[in-house]
Amino acid sequence: MGHDGPVSTHSTTTASDLAAALRVPPGPVDLTAWPTDTTPGFDGDKAEGKRLLGELGDPLGDLQERLFAEGVSGAGERSVLLVLQGMDTSGKGGVVRNTVGLVDPQGVRITSFKAPTPEELEQDFLWRIRKGVPEPGKIGVFDRSHYEDVLIGRVRALVDQEELERRYDAINDFEQELVASGVHVLKVMLHVSRATQRERLLARLDDPTKHWKFAPGDIDDRGLWDDYQRAYEIALERTSTELAPWHVVPADRKWFRNLAVGRLLLGELERMAPQWPSADFDVEEQRGRLQSEPA
Amino acid sequence: MGHDGPVSTHSTTTASDLAAALRVPPGPVDLTAWPTDTTPGFDGDKAEGKRLLGELGDPLGDLQERLFAEGVSGAGERSVLLVLQGMDTSGKGGVVRNTVGLVDPQGVRITSFKAPTPEELEQDFLWRIRKGVPEPGKIGVFDRSHYEDVLIGRVRALVDQEELERRYDAINDFEQELVASGVHVLKVMLHVSRATQRERLLARLDDPTKHWKFAPGDIDDRGLWDDYQRAYEIALERTSTELAPWHVVPADRKWFRNLAVGRLLLGELERMAPQWPSADFDVEEQRGRLQSEPA
Repeated sequence: MGHDGPVSTHSTTTASDLAAALRVPPGPVDLTAWPTDTTPGFDGDKAEGKRLLGELGDPLGDLQERLFAEGVSGAGERSVLLVLQGMDTSGKGGVVRNTVGLVDPQGVRITSFKAPTPEELEQDFLWRIRKGVPEPGKIGVFDRSHYEDVLIGRVRALVDQEELERRYDAINDFEQELVASGVHVLKVMLHVSRATQRERLLARLDDPTKHWKFAPGDIDDRGLWDDYQRAYEIALERTSTELAPWHVVPADRKWFRNLAVGRLLLGELERMAPQWPSADFDVEEQRGRLQSEPA
Repeated sequence: MGHDGPVSTHSTTTASDLAAALRVPPGPVDLTAWPTDTTPGFDGDKAEGKRLLGELGDPLGDLQERLFAEGVSGAGERSVLLVLQGMDTSGKGGVVRNTVGLVDPQGVRITSFKAPTPEELEQDFLWRIRKGVPEPGKIGVFDRSHYEDVLIGRVRALVDQEELERRYDAINDFEQELVASGVHVLKVMLHVSRATQRERLLARLDDPTKHWKFAPGDIDDRGLWDDYQRAYEIALERTSTELAPWHVVPADRKWFRNLAVGRLLLGELERMAPQWPSADFDVEEQRGRLQSEPA
């Protein structure tokens, strides 16, 4: 069964409604049934979307700081791991800059996964991933992730079928382990259309300050577009679990993509409801010590 | 010879003038001659200072992205390392949030150094520091640093005099090595008065959402204020070198502290003048590939 996309269009959708609308339910996944150009939960325009994103700064910053305080004080062992996946130009970097950039960088740990090094290739595919798991109190962000190992790994047949099958299970085991240890896993696929990717690649070619973001291999990968979409579908089907579900965010509009991930992150932090740690010292006693100092 | 502090008060001081005014010159250092409550180079008020800080966002972000592009493309091996030191409440965290937070978090690597772990204590004091050195293209930030090992190390006599002496030299060697490998080292002491620290500690006690930032040991350290100031003076004298000079930023006013570090960082990036990497592919050819795709 496919999914015909979220239906709500009014702008008062709550973060948890949005998460429910974008969550990938159990069962086979047909990405063509997930729109790339809609703005579920919002009927405003780009300017309104940008304004709403800016308004997320205060509540996101407040909850992030509470979570950080929990971690520093030892009052909590919880963290958040935001996993960002998507085709080239889908905007993983834009989400980090515009959405994750809203909160105190001290509380954030970003890991960008490139092609594995020879050293990394000698280890299990999760070896380098484990090193990026956020410490208690932190918001970790994966810009690409262990999912590359079942995406490009499948499309380019970098490993055999048996290893590929093993990896889906290993990913689920790994993520269950994370959840059990207090890591709240928020998985987001930024879903762009092939036509939008073409526009964005052409725009990169038109702008010399963007040439560094372009590689001819990006166009080679477009030749495998359908294979990648199929690999995403299989990955989503196999790994969208109750404790670590996937969300598909329509990403043809940058402003909506940034706003939607911001609201998903806010929703996750609201559910965690981190609290300011209480003092483990006598506040009055300490105040007295300071006040009794010679002027 | 002491230093009677910067004299310029007009607000058109350039970043390099500011760096020169705040730089610790060779020779003995007397921190009592460095003001904590002035705003060198600026005669505006807090509102104006906050506005000016906001205006740094675009040029800082632009230069940071160019540096990042250099690193990603392999066109450059350069990075920046901002070392933040200062007494408790001097605002290291505030600088990270308000100033470093102006740029894309993907291009930033923040390392906060706490008391060393047993594993770290088994190694040379620079062992854990080396792991935080930013990769090419990044802006690294040290919230506390290897200088703790000659500050608290001296004040609390954690090591003997001989080891302490060895460390100043080891630090200079290490930093020269960094500079030679392309790391631009920007060292900043956030200089607060003892009275300001008292106000800020009292404010933390007054606000339950700030209790997690307070520890009774902070007041114990105040009892050693003069010893710490002396340890800073010696560290600055021994390690303010031509290639890795120290800067003393008056930090009694948060807005000026944030702005001054922002301008120092901007000045460093302007001197580096990172350039957009040129394409290592034929732009027209790649455009042709995209345009010739079936619609």
